[in-house]
Amino acid sequence: MAGELEAGVQAQARAARKASRALASATRAEKDAALLAMAEGLERRQAEILAANQRDLDAGAAAGLSKVLLERLMLNPPRVAAMAQGLREVAALPDPCGQVLAEVARPNGIKVQKLRVPLGVVAIVYESRPNVTVDAAGLCLKAGNAVVLRGGKEAIESNKALGAVIREALQSALKAGDAVQMIETTDRAAVAALLHCDRDIDVVIPRGGQGLIAMVRRESSIPVISHGIGNCHVYVDASADLRMAEDIVFNAKTQRPGVCNAMEHLLVAKAVAPAFVPRVAARLKAAGVALRGDRQAAALAGMDQVLADDDAQWDEEYLDLICGIKVVEGLEEAIAHINRHGSGHSDAIVTRDAASGERFLSEVDSAAVYVNASTRFTDGSQFGLGAEIGISTQKLHARGPMGLEELCSTKFVVRGDGQVRD
Amino acid sequence: MAGELEAGVQAQARAARKASRALASATRAEKDAALLAMAEGLERRQAEILAANQRDLDAGAAAGLSKVLLERLMLNPPRVAAMAQGLREVAALPDPCGQVLAEVARPNGIKVQKLRVPLGVVAIVYESRPNVTVDAAGLCLKAGNAVVLRGGKEAIESNKALGAVIREALQSALKAGDAVQMIETTDRAAVAALLHCDRDIDVVIPRGGQGLIAMVRRESSIPVISHGIGNCHVYVDASADLRMAEDIVFNAKTQRPGVCNAMEHLLVAKAVAPAFVPRVAARLKAAGVALRGDRQAAALAGMDQVLADDDAQWDEEYLDLICGIKVVEGLEEAIAHINRHGSGHSDAIVTRDAASGERFLSEVDSAAVYVNASTRFTDGSQFGLGAEIGISTQKLHARGPMGLEELCSTKFVVRGDGQVRD
Repeated sequence: MAGELEAGVQAQARAARKASRALASATRAEKDAALLAMAEGLERRQAEILAANQRDLDAGAAAGLSKVLLERLMLNPPRVAAMAQGLREVAALPDPCGQVLAEVARPNGIKVQKLRVPLGVVAIVYESRPNVTVDAAGLCLKAGNAVVLRGGKEAIESNKALGAVIREALQSALKAGDAVQMIETTDRAAVAALLHCDRDIDVVIPRGGQGLIAMVRRESSIPVISHGIGNCHVYVDASADLRMAEDIVFNAKTQRPGVCNAMEHLLVAKAVAPAFVPRVAARLKAAGVALRGDRQAAALAGMDQVLADDDAQWDEEYLDLICGIKVVEGLEEAIAHINRHGSGHSDAIVTRDAASGERFLSEVDSAAVYVNASTRFTDGSQFGLGAEIGISTQKLHARGPMGLEELCSTKFVVRGDGQVRD
Repeated sequence: MAGELEAGVQAQARAARKASRALASATRAEKDAALLAMAEGLERRQAEILAANQRDLDAGAAAGLSKVLLERLMLNPPRVAAMAQGLREVAALPDPCGQVLAEVARPNGIKVQKLRVPLGVVAIVYESRPNVTVDAAGLCLKAGNAVVLRGGKEAIESNKALGAVIREALQSALKAGDAVQMIETTDRAAVAALLHCDRDIDVVIPRGGQGLIAMVRRESSIPVISHGIGNCHVYVDASADLRMAEDIVFNAKTQRPGVCNAMEHLLVAKAVAPAFVPRVAARLKAAGVALRGDRQAAALAGMDQVLADDDAQWDEEYLDLICGIKVVEGLEEAIAHINRHGSGHSDAIVTRDAASGERFLSEVDSAAVYVNASTRFTDGSQFGLGAEIGISTQKLHARGPMGLEELCSTKFVVRGDGQVRD
């Protein structure tokens, strides 16, 4: 039976590879028409989608899923409308495929172009939120890629319904229904089989918690691009405007604490710590934030916990209303601390000193570095890049918000009239 | 003892990480001065380098190394001069670091830039040729990276001498001697230790045979970018200028058969096979090329071996004066064959039909695709990109010749005046 399951997954990967060839030649107009047909299909077949989702919700409730998980799983008319709207926004983005990144005519007459081209076949392995099915399929298709989707078992009925709508739209608009493959078995062996289809799948993108991402990285024989953790910092420099610093810290910590670009640790220059720590601590506490500080911070304001310099929490992403506070000598120690303990996601300095700001931007080795703004802006749409499929903290291929361009590869195209090499 | 060896390698990686911070802030003028000092040092200390190389050659001869390996290992004044010249050419290339890849001012007033920045620390694991030591160090430094070098044991004395020259130049020009670390033990356990320094090394580049590359890919916990194999094709279309086709095939096969962009397999459209196969076969044979053909090709010209359609040799990179020839129905079969059996390196069509050429360029899924030119041009300097550290057949991060830009990452830099997210 395991052999049958593997053969089924492999056949889906092969079908996606075949469909990807057609998709790679599709024009922007054709791809956009397919995206709009997908959006229209979601609206037209909403009743069917919501009925399937209700079956997932009933099964989840019976299996004792938490309220939070059920909330994530739940679809309703506004959420379906938001998915359709997301597809229309992707249709409105420029087509990354075929963009000429470099062009040169060589003395021997050959013309060399470096073009942006689709990756080919992308696999997405994700957890319970069914909107990922639609978002990921839409972004992959706009970038000219076929996609193999494997969602969480809790959302299986919803995903089957969404997959049927997407495939119908693709088939009618592009005759390429096979360009979206939905793995419909909830058997976990299907994931292992998928992660070894390295002949037909070019890249795997895991979307979900750290456990899922680590498993995919460990097991996959296909290259992986993934969302990293965000242990983000704000450093309040000796020359900072303390009112601005307070607002930025408060926003970075509390505006949406469960996301990767929220601040986890606050560093404060010794010179302003006596003035700054008590007031920011009071404001954070009033918003329900639990405070953890080093000895110096704890001497300036009440902390729920005092952390030694070697406490492993300095490396941690809390994803919660928890904030670590450390007093540092100044800029140099702040940069060293961030490069040592940070996750390379998003880090900010608040300063009025331009040279300190530039040094921070240059020396902090993170995907996004800020002067005088909240780390919460690290996001494809906030950066004006359009929808994103995740935020990478890798240094290869994609770093920061990953959008359509990061779902592409490149290709050198050479045109000659008989040139040979001497 | 193993613990000591590992600790030593880890200390070198840490020293490289530390030095990389300084290097990342170095100006173009500072980096170029260091490259020129390295070139000057090679010339000034040539006697010392050649003496060290002689010790390697003596040890190699005593150990029974083949003539080919000894030839690769050997340095002489012209080869030292060529290494110095290579460094001067890298100095003349534009600095990739700090290039602004995108820039946008958002409605809320934040200014977002996407900048090219160094990767950080690069490790190179390579085999016997000592010129790799100098080439790789030069390219990495120009891209602002510190580098940890681990060469083959046959070249250990040469590499120690070259490493000393490079470090001296870096120290005097940039006070950053630690930015080049040479692993001086020949114990193989040092490689395993190096491949697990994922905290201090950002990327590993293996340079050498497929065995080395496969070992690094398997064992490394650090991301790898590598040179792929080249099973390159030329397809002679029904509408080809057969004289042009003959010259291109002859050049792609024989001009330098041991390199990755040489043609390994020739595909010929059925319509022109009777006219083309006999004449190209005669010319290749006269140049000492062993021919292997499918049944149809063998019916048109004498082949040294007849290959069935499912023979594994269609997937092979010969790196030798061997050529496989297959007769195909036409363009569609040629594209399908290349996408199935090729290695995604370099593939060419010879045709007078513009539509066939464009279809081939679009549908063949390789790093470099050609119309009417030899595959031998896939090379950084032939494409006008400058020196390269290898040719990638991966689709992520780098595809095709990998030069200075591919030795870089990117970073989002955001400047605000107190913006927070709503």
